Amino acid sequence: MSFTRPLPLKGRVLGGGNEPLVCTPVVGRDEDALRREVATVAARRPDLIEWRVDFFGALGDTARVVRLAQELRALAGDIPILFTRRSIREGGTPIDVGEDQVFALYEAVCRAGSVDQIDWELSSEPRWWTQAVELSRATGVPLVASFHDFQRTPSKADLVAKFAAMQDAGADVAKIAVMPRHLRDVLTLLDATLEARETLRVPLISMSMGAYGSLSRLFGWMYGSSVTFAVGDQASAPGQVPMEDLAAVFEVLQRALKGAG
Amino acid sequence: MSFTRPLPLKGRVLGGGNEPLVCTPVVGRDEDALRREVATVAARRPDLIEWRVDFFGALGDTARVVRLAQELRALAGDIPILFTRRSIREGGTPIDVGEDQVFALYEAVCRAGSVDQIDWELSSEPRWWTQAVELSRATGVPLVASFHDFQRTPSKADLVAKFAAMQDAGADVAKIAVMPRHLRDVLTLLDATLEARETLRVPLISMSMGAYGSLSRLFGWMYGSSVTFAVGDQASAPGQVPMEDLAAVFEVLQRALKGAG
Repeated sequence: MSFTRPLPLKGRVLGGGNEPLVCTPVVGRDEDALRREVATVAARRPDLIEWRVDFFGALGDTARVVRLAQELRALAGDIPILFTRRSIREGGTPIDVGEDQVFALYEAVCRAGSVDQIDWELSSEPRWWTQAVELSRATGVPLVASFHDFQRTPSKADLVAKFAAMQDAGADVAKIAVMPRHLRDVLTLLDATLEARETLRVPLISMSMGAYGSLSRLFGWMYGSSVTFAVGDQASAPGQVPMEDLAAVFEVLQRALKGAG
Repeated sequence: MSFTRPLPLKGRVLGGGNEPLVCTPVVGRDEDALRREVATVAARRPDLIEWRVDFFGALGDTARVVRLAQELRALAGDIPILFTRRSIREGGTPIDVGEDQVFALYEAVCRAGSVDQIDWELSSEPRWWTQAVELSRATGVPLVASFHDFQRTPSKADLVAKFAAMQDAGADVAKIAVMPRHLRDVLTLLDATLEARETLRVPLISMSMGAYGSLSRLFGWMYGSSVTFAVGDQASAPGQVPMEDLAAVFEVLQRALKGAG
């Protein structure tokens, strides 16, 4: 039985067997911190590593980022790397470079072949979004469209519409992370993910954040989220659960689900 | 932070601290099997043991049941016993005694002081229901009203109305167990439990059964279910999870929830 869709990466596809895929973020500020983090995280064998490049101090130095990306990729071995600049607007770290420079950086790492997937926010200016889709198609690096709301959880209809808008806009994967104000909001996120899973063709990633939302990090894959983000070394968003904790829960669920379907 | 209400028992109350309470069923057909089962289960320290007396072969022999109830209670030590005859209609084992004899049995064990809580189905004939409430009040043994549907999951509104009907009918605890046909039904059960938790005063017990429903056994307490039923020795309903598995998941959830509220 399969609850989620496989995840497209440059030149391959992840998943289709074990569910869910586990992605651990790395958030180092400089080369040394990132080397250490990637080595630590890779040793724990996540399915995917997300480099949150907005935490990197020298983001404005494209050549340095490309060099580092290649080094980190080698350190990660066969574990693919998702390259993500999160904007301040959607919960990222303040950076001192303009959008054109950020895009140039994405272009450089994609063309250098040193990342396996890129994340771009759907709420970005349309011209950047369009260029992100073109870059992804030109370089074969699949594009994750993302949307974050750290204040609240939109309605089920709005969430489903957002997933659909991502697919329509040309994303290869649609990702939504929202904050619950109430336990019921966690159910809304799961329900919306299930509906999108039933009605769309792109793989989905969804999560409810914060303490209550940790439920969705544990069980959201059953409702169609292909990837769950977990702490390998340091958390990058509220509510992320340590990898061992996820593994313990997945084991219980896999046993409980035997014979389901 | 407390997600659930404490559970009333004869002369005491359980919970208010650790959540959720774990109840393990015993389903032996004769004295020896039950002695073994209660000893095994009690050693694993559940919060509550449910004696599913419909599995007991000599159900028609009131004196024998009362004697055995006292023996099992002694074997269980400080772990309280919930006394339950589940009807065939609601998923129980076929028995060859009439409803009047079943009721006489409940009366005998309650008056003998050998059980701590009783379960009676809300769907029973009104005269039996009324007598169950009177028996509970006269003997101080709290009454769990129960409702089971092994075929489907009613709508959220119907589930909330069912919980409310139990409270209105004089139950001390309201319990609903329903079968999901779809993953969305599990969300419906959780949502209904949360609404009942917000609008009623009685403690609630709820679960979605089967493989998908095992999710509700793991995290239904966050949505207001005071008790989760787990396998100590042998399962009594589909989807019950072993006690150790529950404990592993609760530990992860408790860590994730630190700071929530």
